[in-house]
Amino acid sequence: MKNTNTIVGPLLTDLYQLTMVYGYWCHDKWNLPAVFDLHFRKNPFKGEFTIFAGLAEVLRFADNFQFTENDIQYLKDQNFFGSDPSPDFFDWLKTIDCSDVKIYALPEGTLAFPREPLLRVEGPLAVIQLMETTLLNLVNYASLMATNAARFRLAAGYDKGLLEFGLRRAQGPDGGVSASRYAYLGGFDGTSNVLAGKLFGIPVKGTNAHSFISSFTSIDDLKTRCILGKPDIDFVEKVLSIKKRLQYKTHEGELAAFIAYAISYPHNFLALVDTYDTLQSGVPNFLIVALALVELGFAPIGIRLDSGDLAYLSQQAREMFLQHQDILPKLTIIASNDINENTLVSLQQQKHQIDAFGIGTHLVTCQAQPALGGVYKLVELSGMPRMKLSQDVEKITLPGRKNVYRIIGKEGYPLLDLMTKEGDPSPKPGEKMLCRHPFKSANRVYVTPKEVISLQKCYWNGALMEELPSIHDAREYVLQQLSNFRSDHLRQLNPTPYKISLSDDLYVFFHNLWEVEAPILEIT
Amino acid sequence: MKNTNTIVGPLLTDLYQLTMVYGYWCHDKWNLPAVFDLHFRKNPFKGEFTIFAGLAEVLRFADNFQFTENDIQYLKDQNFFGSDPSPDFFDWLKTIDCSDVKIYALPEGTLAFPREPLLRVEGPLAVIQLMETTLLNLVNYASLMATNAARFRLAAGYDKGLLEFGLRRAQGPDGGVSASRYAYLGGFDGTSNVLAGKLFGIPVKGTNAHSFISSFTSIDDLKTRCILGKPDIDFVEKVLSIKKRLQYKTHEGELAAFIAYAISYPHNFLALVDTYDTLQSGVPNFLIVALALVELGFAPIGIRLDSGDLAYLSQQAREMFLQHQDILPKLTIIASNDINENTLVSLQQQKHQIDAFGIGTHLVTCQAQPALGGVYKLVELSGMPRMKLSQDVEKITLPGRKNVYRIIGKEGYPLLDLMTKEGDPSPKPGEKMLCRHPFKSANRVYVTPKEVISLQKCYWNGALMEELPSIHDAREYVLQQLSNFRSDHLRQLNPTPYKISLSDDLYVFFHNLWEVEAPILEIT
Repeated sequence: MKNTNTIVGPLLTDLYQLTMVYGYWCHDKWNLPAVFDLHFRKNPFKGEFTIFAGLAEVLRFADNFQFTENDIQYLKDQNFFGSDPSPDFFDWLKTIDCSDVKIYALPEGTLAFPREPLLRVEGPLAVIQLMETTLLNLVNYASLMATNAARFRLAAGYDKGLLEFGLRRAQGPDGGVSASRYAYLGGFDGTSNVLAGKLFGIPVKGTNAHSFISSFTSIDDLKTRCILGKPDIDFVEKVLSIKKRLQYKTHEGELAAFIAYAISYPHNFLALVDTYDTLQSGVPNFLIVALALVELGFAPIGIRLDSGDLAYLSQQAREMFLQHQDILPKLTIIASNDINENTLVSLQQQKHQIDAFGIGTHLVTCQAQPALGGVYKLVELSGMPRMKLSQDVEKITLPGRKNVYRIIGKEGYPLLDLMTKEGDPSPKPGEKMLCRHPFKSANRVYVTPKEVISLQKCYWNGALMEELPSIHDAREYVLQQLSNFRSDHLRQLNPTPYKISLSDDLYVFFHNLWEVEAPILEIT
Repeated sequence: MKNTNTIVGPLLTDLYQLTMVYGYWCHDKWNLPAVFDLHFRKNPFKGEFTIFAGLAEVLRFADNFQFTENDIQYLKDQNFFGSDPSPDFFDWLKTIDCSDVKIYALPEGTLAFPREPLLRVEGPLAVIQLMETTLLNLVNYASLMATNAARFRLAAGYDKGLLEFGLRRAQGPDGGVSASRYAYLGGFDGTSNVLAGKLFGIPVKGTNAHSFISSFTSIDDLKTRCILGKPDIDFVEKVLSIKKRLQYKTHEGELAAFIAYAISYPHNFLALVDTYDTLQSGVPNFLIVALALVELGFAPIGIRLDSGDLAYLSQQAREMFLQHQDILPKLTIIASNDINENTLVSLQQQKHQIDAFGIGTHLVTCQAQPALGGVYKLVELSGMPRMKLSQDVEKITLPGRKNVYRIIGKEGYPLLDLMTKEGDPSPKPGEKMLCRHPFKSANRVYVTPKEVISLQKCYWNGALMEELPSIHDAREYVLQQLSNFRSDHLRQLNPTPYKISLSDDLYVFFHNLWEVEAPILEIT
């Protein structure tokens, strides 16, 4: 876990966490054993799945969780705790850390569903209360971003390249770095963000922009005429003779820019073709330079389209390529320009000829839904189950410590996720069991698992307990799950909800407590 | 400028900036004197204004702009520059910094409009090309966020409190810190984010959450019965006697939590009243404790509503308060729960009784439009004007170096912003001049300014040139401009566009160049 950010410490929190903790401290409640679940209530993007991410950062936060002298001084100076708080309180704040905390979590990249505990955090009430805001911050955006990326992957298809280009529109520097990281985890192939590449080992891609093309106005701008290693061949002359032969009328500055780029990158020649006119100038200029490169033994890569009707332009460009297919290798068409999930679906319907997509704004800002509503709720205190009540059934939390199992059916795909009470026997392959809807008493189903996957692990118990997978392995895990789940759960339009069930034992426990806790209101 | 983030350096960029720069370097173009404008094309949120922000971070970036040995080693290892780039290239990369760069900018917090250069960056082509992505990243989100905050301020009214509560839903740790910072700059009164408070001196607010309330189940949970400084009075007993007198039937755990909080914060008692039932339990429990505090000489603050029909509940709570107005001070009602700009407008129509709003998700994720489309375009190279052409007129950039003036009319409010060619005489108070629409030749207007404000300053010329205002002063500047502009430019529904004009000289220069540059296409 590399340190990409120095701001993630105990002050990265809402003030009310601290003011509450002073309340706990005054009433000797700070050390009560407590359990919080971090979960969400609704899948994002009108979908029926979510990719859980952010675990590596959560564990780094737990490892670094300690107030500095400087933090304490700031808290003292601000008079947050009333006019005369006991100095003992600040002395005590200095001592707390995560040595008595346990964190159970799903593995990074797990497909997760509403009400499942992504994290179960156990420890002294005050300590784990103080962690709430930061844990939510670390999990919410990471999971949203990974889910968004996975949805783009599903919409584009597994055979297309997907590159994240969002840094300039991302929400701040770290927003951009996180976006690149979790886009890759969610199934992208690479990023344009060099720092993210360096920090996380993500493949980095990029060629050139309109400003490069328009910085050249004529062939005279070319100060180098030969490709490195081919000093005897005037590459510019070769290009111009091909242009003459083909009788293309194209923009000279653009051609100069393409030649310049090919001289610097003969092995990686990819041209941005829409600066002046894609089909009348950009693609012909690309072809002229590509044919010259082939004569010298290099394989040109292809083009990037960054405006216009991407489906039409890609088809036209492909046809123009095919006129030279006896000479040119298979060429790549990359498209960018404000692409979102719906654009990808629509482009498919139009039978586009694009091989890879560069995706920015809509991916990194998660424009379709810019926040995941993860919450962190008290489920046990001093050994007694707790639940949050609400007139809104969606907001009611499942009390107590729970285990989560993924039940695989005889066809090999996941049938449902089952939550049980911690301590109850786990479901077993071949053993029939009753699985119940959390709220609808008549919705019950008998299931005989072919395979049972226990989803939670204890990642932190005063110290790191599990080796974390590399980002590449986590990405593979995401892609493998996407191909294992039934596609109707994953599809864009009207997906089928995946079942989240309770064991009969947990169901009865939950509903009994609910009846006891819920006040019977008087209507007058 | 405090160092909140260590990741903002020259690697926080898109790879293509680096690959292009290698192209410039190969063709001896890296040192050509260039000028880029950073501007946007469209105001966000269907509005007609934008608050420019991010300048302090831009200048910090300029100050720190230098590749480390470690950065260079990463770039070498990745083989980004073809199979055999000259080692001289990396040696040269090591040497570049912003000592030959100039940055002109609008002051932080300026109301800005489409096509105005927020930044004008001058310097060696390669250096200022490398800065593009980072500059956009630093300006786009900061400006979007400040604009969003200003819109919430306009919707809530100047007499309401506005608190930013978004950290848990923000896009990563730094996204959260930036959100708090620029929400304050855009007109909010404070944040819940403690770290942002510490880093930027922003007021921090917060009380308690549902988990605090539900962690108490009965009066027996109270381990301290007296308020600090009042050791002779059993505060719990006093509360219970008031409860008995008023014959309120309320939730005992909630009452215990309120008592606990009042004992810890007798001067700052603010109760979260919706954990069980707002009007039947929460508000009555608040009143019981508030009356007890008053008997001891403390002034209770008020309540927070976090769910339900906020207009109705605030009206009902206010009525319940008024039944005790002979004893209680003026009480504050704070509302939170998924509030957006439209909610604020709707609550006003319903004559809500809320004094302050806590706003989270919709503010910090800028849900209504999660990205500002700022761009960075080459406008001059080697002393020659450059413009980006596009079939889309909106995307055409204004060539050359430009100055921006705000023209104040005789009523004292801004009439229009005027751009002139750098070097041309500036407009003067009392002198009539022709102001032209950038694209519509018939749209012209004569204006005689009462006052002329030159908006740009040179903030960087190889080193910092101007002292930056404090965030508090920048916030005042925002609020002062909001009250100076005509309200029809600022209103939520169908705002009137504010005029962005060109001097006649700039208009002619621009349109002549456009005719010369734009290719006449052949349609076949």
